[in-house]
Amino acid sequence: MAETGLYYPPDPSSWEMCTIGGNIGTASGGLCCVKYGVTAEYVLGLDVILADGRLLRTGRRTAKGVAGYDLTRLFVGAEGSLGVVVQATLALKPAPPEQLVLAAEFGSAAAACEAVREIMAQGHVPSLLELMDKTTVRAVNAFTKMDLPDTTEALLLAAFDTHDPAADLTALGKLCAAAGATEVVPAADAAESELLLAARRTALTALETVTAASMIDESAGAGAGRPATMIDDVCVPRSKLGEFFEGVARLSDEYRLPIGVVAHAGDGNTHPTVCFDGNDPDQCIRAQQAFGAIMDLGLELGGTITGEHGVGLLKKDWLAKEVGPVSLELHRGIKEAFDPLGILNPGKVF
Amino acid sequence: MAETGLYYPPDPSSWEMCTIGGNIGTASGGLCCVKYGVTAEYVLGLDVILADGRLLRTGRRTAKGVAGYDLTRLFVGAEGSLGVVVQATLALKPAPPEQLVLAAEFGSAAAACEAVREIMAQGHVPSLLELMDKTTVRAVNAFTKMDLPDTTEALLLAAFDTHDPAADLTALGKLCAAAGATEVVPAADAAESELLLAARRTALTALETVTAASMIDESAGAGAGRPATMIDDVCVPRSKLGEFFEGVARLSDEYRLPIGVVAHAGDGNTHPTVCFDGNDPDQCIRAQQAFGAIMDLGLELGGTITGEHGVGLLKKDWLAKEVGPVSLELHRGIKEAFDPLGILNPGKVF
Repeated sequence: MAETGLYYPPDPSSWEMCTIGGNIGTASGGLCCVKYGVTAEYVLGLDVILADGRLLRTGRRTAKGVAGYDLTRLFVGAEGSLGVVVQATLALKPAPPEQLVLAAEFGSAAAACEAVREIMAQGHVPSLLELMDKTTVRAVNAFTKMDLPDTTEALLLAAFDTHDPAADLTALGKLCAAAGATEVVPAADAAESELLLAARRTALTALETVTAASMIDESAGAGAGRPATMIDDVCVPRSKLGEFFEGVARLSDEYRLPIGVVAHAGDGNTHPTVCFDGNDPDQCIRAQQAFGAIMDLGLELGGTITGEHGVGLLKKDWLAKEVGPVSLELHRGIKEAFDPLGILNPGKVF
Repeated sequence: MAETGLYYPPDPSSWEMCTIGGNIGTASGGLCCVKYGVTAEYVLGLDVILADGRLLRTGRRTAKGVAGYDLTRLFVGAEGSLGVVVQATLALKPAPPEQLVLAAEFGSAAAACEAVREIMAQGHVPSLLELMDKTTVRAVNAFTKMDLPDTTEALLLAAFDTHDPAADLTALGKLCAAAGATEVVPAADAAESELLLAARRTALTALETVTAASMIDESAGAGAGRPATMIDDVCVPRSKLGEFFEGVARLSDEYRLPIGVVAHAGDGNTHPTVCFDGNDPDQCIRAQQAFGAIMDLGLELGGTITGEHGVGLLKKDWLAKEVGPVSLELHRGIKEAFDPLGILNPGKVF
């Protein structure tokens, strides 16, 4: 696409290994969503093999279209339970200018969340707006020797891919300082931007090396037990983001496990990552409990159990909690209409 | 909403008389879609009374969410055939700066369409991009005495609601001139912008006074027969817009009826408006034939029969042409799952 000056905006963090088919199955998101939206918004039409082997064509090649029910959107995020997508017509956009990144450190996650709320309320349109809590920052430091300051309680990364990103970063830097940022570092060019983003890009890998033991004794490092993670995908209204970060910190104490939170903060979409020792049966149980308690917290705050990763097997029970019995019955009715024998990805979603 | 600094972007041309419920039923669009998208993108969740009287809650209050099938999107644009929407959770945006409008006249619709293609290909993000053909311009002149130049073959209106709209209009004016615009008129302020937009706002009303007789003898005016219109809603890929305008002009000759085209050109969404004398049985038949031939033309060019207004009764036969038998069968399966007795808006859509 690059040679035509066009690009495909959705950028799941797993972009180096994920597939477009998988993105469509889960309606996946990514860092760019705060400005460009999710995968579903770029899927114009689909070729789908139905359960009975027939080919269905959905959608269109045009910017707009409302002919009949939105079957395209029904397949996007259905996790393969309604048909097998074999071809997709995707919307492309003219490639924007290269983005410039700003990093801002905050003395608390609450202050950083308030800055996020203010950024979006003022109508800024960053091309990414990511937040990492102190557990994540410490994990990244330990994993990469990046030497982010130990006092950092929350690290906010923002970017603009506008025609004058430096001016936008200056305005954002002032806003962050006014909201209590202890340090604001705007990148001067693309190379510096990449350096700042590296912290975010390695966050999940870094958290995957963390266990309760390694957090207490950093010298224990990756050798402490068998590090494992359970990654939540809760999305809450932006106004509830601060409350959610506080709640997750409480759950970390309650279940005595490190929980690092990385968030697509501009969307209110968070990935609390429960870190535990996979060799320790008691920790495994507590990790599952914490994983569920985080979803319960998200639902209490008016959020959803999954912002961009889907339901799969792990979250089936919570799907029922979120959507309720009437919706679940309609889900079954649709499934029945598309796949009466239940042969498509059986046992998933609901 | 204004007092909170927020606004609801979708702006159907009928905004002074249409309802949010109707907008949701038809997944309606409007002038702003080229930048802000259609109604469906602003509907986060719905309360729906189902055919059996139960209340269903769909969707979410968050920016992102993929829990289960996208039932919200299924109801939006279903034209009341799956349930009765009784409440909606809508997404609002921070209000943008007031927009500034530019008018550009072209010597042919083809040249104007090429300018539209180039504007979008270069990544400009106008807040509206509307095109009126010469039949429409003449109708507006006759109706409003606006004195748009008689040489105008196509009138393009563009607007920006950015922080520096004057700079954006300057860039766009240059692009239009390079693409062959015979005159470019940027508005200096909001009042001038409104004057330029008035031509577009009165277009359909003006076309409603047109008949073949009045086009030939302007002094006949609105008194010529009983003026009536049939308004198409074809959306084509932007690259086919010029071909579509040419095709409609041919159909106007073939069926010997004036057809004025106003288009949300940035989306490729056009409203060819067939004007006829409702008292003349022969013209009524030709109008219906032209109305259908325009949809056939749209489908040939890879377009859709309805970009934003829905199927209703008039376009039922063309829905089947557009989506095909497999899709239609699935539509019936979904309808059956939601409304087994067929009591919801019976006879509509398919």
